[in-house]
Amino acid sequence: MPEPLMARLSSRQADFDSLLDALLAWDSVSDDAVASTVQHVLADVKARGDAALLEYTRQFDALDVSAMAELEFSQEQLLAALTRIDAAQREALENAAARIRHYHEKQVQQSWSYTEADGTVLGQQVRGMDRVGLYVPGGKATYPSSVLMNAVPAKVAGVAELIMVSPTPRGFVNDMVLAAAAIAGVDRVFAVGGAQAIAALAYGTESIPRVDKIVGPGNIYVATAKRQVFGSVGLDMIAGPSEILVVCDGKTDPDWIAMDLFSQAEHDEDAQSLLISPDADFLDAVAVSIERLLPDMERVDIIRQSLAGRGAMIHVADMDEAIALVNRIAPEHLELSVDQPEQYLADIRHAGAIFMGRHTPEALGDYCAGPNHVLPTSGTARFSSPLGVYDFQKRSSIINCSPAGAATLAATASVLARGESLTAHARSAEYRMAGDSDE
Amino acid sequence: MPEPLMARLSSRQADFDSLLDALLAWDSVSDDAVASTVQHVLADVKARGDAALLEYTRQFDALDVSAMAELEFSQEQLLAALTRIDAAQREALENAAARIRHYHEKQVQQSWSYTEADGTVLGQQVRGMDRVGLYVPGGKATYPSSVLMNAVPAKVAGVAELIMVSPTPRGFVNDMVLAAAAIAGVDRVFAVGGAQAIAALAYGTESIPRVDKIVGPGNIYVATAKRQVFGSVGLDMIAGPSEILVVCDGKTDPDWIAMDLFSQAEHDEDAQSLLISPDADFLDAVAVSIERLLPDMERVDIIRQSLAGRGAMIHVADMDEAIALVNRIAPEHLELSVDQPEQYLADIRHAGAIFMGRHTPEALGDYCAGPNHVLPTSGTARFSSPLGVYDFQKRSSIINCSPAGAATLAATASVLARGESLTAHARSAEYRMAGDSDE
Repeated sequence: MPEPLMARLSSRQADFDSLLDALLAWDSVSDDAVASTVQHVLADVKARGDAALLEYTRQFDALDVSAMAELEFSQEQLLAALTRIDAAQREALENAAARIRHYHEKQVQQSWSYTEADGTVLGQQVRGMDRVGLYVPGGKATYPSSVLMNAVPAKVAGVAELIMVSPTPRGFVNDMVLAAAAIAGVDRVFAVGGAQAIAALAYGTESIPRVDKIVGPGNIYVATAKRQVFGSVGLDMIAGPSEILVVCDGKTDPDWIAMDLFSQAEHDEDAQSLLISPDADFLDAVAVSIERLLPDMERVDIIRQSLAGRGAMIHVADMDEAIALVNRIAPEHLELSVDQPEQYLADIRHAGAIFMGRHTPEALGDYCAGPNHVLPTSGTARFSSPLGVYDFQKRSSIINCSPAGAATLAATASVLARGESLTAHARSAEYRMAGDSDE
Repeated sequence: MPEPLMARLSSRQADFDSLLDALLAWDSVSDDAVASTVQHVLADVKARGDAALLEYTRQFDALDVSAMAELEFSQEQLLAALTRIDAAQREALENAAARIRHYHEKQVQQSWSYTEADGTVLGQQVRGMDRVGLYVPGGKATYPSSVLMNAVPAKVAGVAELIMVSPTPRGFVNDMVLAAAAIAGVDRVFAVGGAQAIAALAYGTESIPRVDKIVGPGNIYVATAKRQVFGSVGLDMIAGPSEILVVCDGKTDPDWIAMDLFSQAEHDEDAQSLLISPDADFLDAVAVSIERLLPDMERVDIIRQSLAGRGAMIHVADMDEAIALVNRIAPEHLELSVDQPEQYLADIRHAGAIFMGRHTPEALGDYCAGPNHVLPTSGTARFSSPLGVYDFQKRSSIINCSPAGAATLAATASVLARGESLTAHARSAEYRMAGDSDE
């Protein structure tokens, strides 16, 4: 048997904790040169609007354009892309969109209120955001599935205007991406990208209206630009490398598990694939499957680097130990390739998405099962959730005191305000202590 | 009539838009010296844990302590504080906590799932976070109401361990704050503050366990520390100065409105109080009330600076124009001091909290009406919500495919994955296309 590609750990080895910590460690590199470039681009687009946006697009995307109108796709162009793609691809996109829409409709939150005995009304008004920007990376690594996963929940939330930006370097346009935008109901699409596109969305230009929130993945310039506009515009998570943690009881076909690990590893060299099992022989069997299957994979080099550099197989004593490790790792994707996976659900405290059973590989969730594929990475499932409709809705508290209710509340508010030496608060409340005498 | 304290604008004046923009502009100062100090403190506490935390506490809080045990309040100490405060204050705190708890219980989100015809189960598992840190500023501007507003929703969400940190400079302990912690069910309280306390919560030390999310207000060092640990730990919003926008039809007692404006202005010099009315005579009447009432206010100097520097009265043509301005400003607090405020609710798109009617001053919401007083500032109500139970819960997607369901989904996933050149994804899906033949 050859030297296995993936590192092998055992929870019993003395240095397991420190080895696991090293394996999971991920620091997003903060590059001063990138930060400084981005800062300049943001300030320039903020100050000069479309003129700066056009200059950067000519410079970075090698496009010969002189007016923003040349950089906007019309709805007719989106629909034309939809007719140009293969019928099977169109059907797959439409099927995926319908399933994603159906699932996300369950997440819509409604306004609510209740009336107290004295007539005071309390509640929350829930609304979709006015305008959202969706960043879609350009070039060949452009994912139509990502358009659906970001755009559909926004439209389900009731976002009035969804604006997509995606660079078209040297004029390369991805029909699948435009088709996905058409299916998802994206309102406007601009062929701009990079930090300059983030600036346009955050500040607005003559042609691109300012949005309330920006979502979608991007390269280091895009991620840095999002960090720098934080506060003035809402943001989704800034994602780290994608990861999967497969827990297997040893009874799944090892080829299936090998391919599930590959499917994560093929994203990029930094992606992380982990396999945990109480069955050491099964880990050996998966290693054999990996050796046999890997040479035939289209993205063999990326997979090899990812598995060798960041992958690991971890032997544990039993399933209890496996679930404890899941909670320690808080994986983006958790695959429970075991009998009766439901029995473990209540004990899983942290995971972005839980793929249950031998017939639920991550790939199904990535595309079309319905749940979102934008998930918390790098252990942030401890405090973050999958992208959802709730990320595109916001709430306003509703407080409508009856005169009698105000009089009662004012007595309490007055005591607490004076305790905090905020006497204008106290007096403002006390004016309402007379109840309805002034009505 | 003397020169009015608050600037007077009219929506009809030619330069109204630019004047309003200038009035609303707020840039949180990013000070390189502060950032560098904070970076050093964070790295030091991360590397040396309790030893560094003790050193900084001796240095910054002038406390003669040699062990972390001296810096933890026991539950007995919290309960002792509860018995030491005035009976009226205790009753007010308990009453406020009960109302806040009752309101926030309406926000609890439950896990959900549905089963498709082919047996596939989809849903989300919703859970409270494991451990949350609550920062409470020290010294005299310490607000027990803020303890309730942050701690109660976390406990309602089911957070297992809530850890409060609050500095006690020169040994000054605020009994009301400890009493509020006791009432809210805070699990542990440490007398540490500043960037060093944020570092302890974000990274953990020998004595203070690492938390999943940090909430609560703080000074510039605390806010900068929160920004720097962003990503490795969840955070609440980083708040700007507090603001109120009062819309009045001219029929409320002008003294009441003056005091409502004062109640915002007394927070600090940067706080913003705005009044909008279609009734110019009413604006004059409020100006007269301000002149008459201001000299007697305890915090007269702060109020005067705030109203003169950042306040304004805006005369509008009618209520339609008033509501349009509300949406443009997206205020933290909106007071609708008008007849039948319900008629405007559907048109208000952006506001942190909406105080409806003449008997609902902001002060009631600040303390005890029930809704949260932690609200989005500086126009971020366009995309943010009041602090709530939902900020302390998180979700995991649930996907459990039946063999038949997996076979159907795999067909779609395979087409889309091959369209994205992710063939390991495609093959992983295709392995499951045989449906239940392997069962």
